[in-house]
Amino acid sequence: MQSDERYMRLALEMAKIGSGQTSPNPAVGAVVVKNGEIVGLGAHLKAGEPHAEVHAIRMAGEKAAGATVYVTLEPCSHFGKTPPCADLLVEAKVARVVIATTDPNPLVAGKGMERLKQAGIEVVLGTLKEEADELNRVFFHYITTKTPFVTLKYASSLDGKIATKTGDSKWITSEAAREDVHRYRAANDAILVGVNTIMADNPHLTTRLPEGGKSPIRIILDTDLRTPLHANVISNDEAETWMVVGSQVSSERMALYQRSHVRVMQMNQPHIDIWEMLRMLGEHKITSLFVEGGSRIHDSFVRSRAFQEIVAYFAPKLIGGHEAPTPVGGTGILRMAEAAELAIKRVEMVGPDIKVIAIPK
Amino acid sequence: MQSDERYMRLALEMAKIGSGQTSPNPAVGAVVVKNGEIVGLGAHLKAGEPHAEVHAIRMAGEKAAGATVYVTLEPCSHFGKTPPCADLLVEAKVARVVIATTDPNPLVAGKGMERLKQAGIEVVLGTLKEEADELNRVFFHYITTKTPFVTLKYASSLDGKIATKTGDSKWITSEAAREDVHRYRAANDAILVGVNTIMADNPHLTTRLPEGGKSPIRIILDTDLRTPLHANVISNDEAETWMVVGSQVSSERMALYQRSHVRVMQMNQPHIDIWEMLRMLGEHKITSLFVEGGSRIHDSFVRSRAFQEIVAYFAPKLIGGHEAPTPVGGTGILRMAEAAELAIKRVEMVGPDIKVIAIPK
Repeated sequence: MQSDERYMRLALEMAKIGSGQTSPNPAVGAVVVKNGEIVGLGAHLKAGEPHAEVHAIRMAGEKAAGATVYVTLEPCSHFGKTPPCADLLVEAKVARVVIATTDPNPLVAGKGMERLKQAGIEVVLGTLKEEADELNRVFFHYITTKTPFVTLKYASSLDGKIATKTGDSKWITSEAAREDVHRYRAANDAILVGVNTIMADNPHLTTRLPEGGKSPIRIILDTDLRTPLHANVISNDEAETWMVVGSQVSSERMALYQRSHVRVMQMNQPHIDIWEMLRMLGEHKITSLFVEGGSRIHDSFVRSRAFQEIVAYFAPKLIGGHEAPTPVGGTGILRMAEAAELAIKRVEMVGPDIKVIAIPK
Repeated sequence: MQSDERYMRLALEMAKIGSGQTSPNPAVGAVVVKNGEIVGLGAHLKAGEPHAEVHAIRMAGEKAAGATVYVTLEPCSHFGKTPPCADLLVEAKVARVVIATTDPNPLVAGKGMERLKQAGIEVVLGTLKEEADELNRVFFHYITTKTPFVTLKYASSLDGKIATKTGDSKWITSEAAREDVHRYRAANDAILVGVNTIMADNPHLTTRLPEGGKSPIRIILDTDLRTPLHANVISNDEAETWMVVGSQVSSERMALYQRSHVRVMQMNQPHIDIWEMLRMLGEHKITSLFVEGGSRIHDSFVRSRAFQEIVAYFAPKLIGGHEAPTPVGGTGILRMAEAAELAIKRVEMVGPDIKVIAIPK
């Protein structure tokens, strides 16, 4: 039905309100409609707090009986931090549930719909599925792979340089583009850089936005634990810092980094394997990871094919120099056929800069 | 008047038909309107052939008397290969002439308008001036600076590489993007590459388009005249080849390159100065130059600030490698403050690739 799409679009708008702040949960929106009138609205806003359906059904009150519920994700059927939403809808005696997409979470995966159908409720699946899948791509990736959704971010000149050959990189992009980056930081569970970036720029890696916004966990890949103790990511406690180190680092050395906000995580091998590290982060409930580089870190992620999205900013500048560093450095590839193939998802202007979002092909 | 804009837009559409094939003349369109009816249309199509006004007035015949003429560029007032158009309009007894922009050619520059006014014709200047200036930016640049309008073109991966570290560059961009490049070749008087590109790729540097299209003059910057005699640009005579060499190259060596389609041009200095070379090309009536690189050539043009437009293609690929070549290599700059500042003029998709057009800020 055409009206189904209209109400589902509203439910998606509701879901987007919570997007980026519901981790490790998905962002979900719900709309309750009775006799062509909207009687309830809801969005999931934070893990541990009520699901979208709960808010919407509460708002609808007795009008929920016989109503149609539009929900962007299959209602849950299991007891988590909150009771199952499928049961709630059954109890509220709704007549019809329109669902955008199924929950790939193995604890739900079709069971929510099953529960509704058993209770005699009409279930419609797939309305605006693509939009709903896109909205929860981070959650879906995490729940199915148990590793974080990885976004590689870089900012370069139009000729692909991230600094001059002397290392001068302040600033390539505009304030508008840098603010955009901070929005990504706030929306990700964790941010990752290599020790070379710490050495070169000594960044804080916190979120600084006019409207506030949480700082992500700072993850530093530092095989030999060379990060200086006075580095901002160690001395500044505005966010947690996780140091990922190789197996050869001594426990004495690791003990030096002991802080309430610093955790040292040792790999089983002398070198950091990207996929092993991602699995470890997944176990620690990191659903989304924003990789800010530098050049060699990006190369490791690209060669491991360990990324789900690229966010690239191009500043209207030419730097030049065959020695100037580029966004993806390191070893690289030998033949064009080995290049990581992408598809361009979106190109837009952010202030004077070009922003490109690409995904693996 | 609103109708003035409408007819001038039509005149601009006429002008665009000849765009890219009128060098060293500007592209011009003309429309004759009488009593709200279009009675004449004209476009300049090729140097030496009639100007737009001539075609349009001829088409209008006796209806030209008392009509309004819309012309995208000030009518000429001098005898060139054809008689002055201003005189023609006077003789045709037109009542009113609407002009988009003045001709910066010192032989015209206001004199065309003056001639019309003296004859009692009403003259309106500036309708859609911006569009008209944009259309003839190449001609205007050439006529005012006596050097060609320089377009720097490059194609890189999304991480700013023009090849892998082993030099493999076939193909970074799509067929659609490569066809787009050939359209630029056809529209430019000359194409320029450095000797390193000849050595690495042995290109033909001709225009290959499904619809045909002229091949530009091939200009090779080759300070020490190292281009192999069997190189395609020497052995293939589909287009002229101009070799630009330093003062130390012996006349014996230059004589080896003697071909009907090859010309060796020696600079006064051992090294090739970009601006001196551009002035020389200007003297040889090269109004537009399409610089295809490589990396060091682009750096020379960028550091000399000798370019009017950048056309950059970004393929949805990641190559990586700190040794992989980038679009602008060579010496580069030391500090960000020295970067060549650009403004983004247009961003569009060409097949799967991103095309960016930028101009100096």
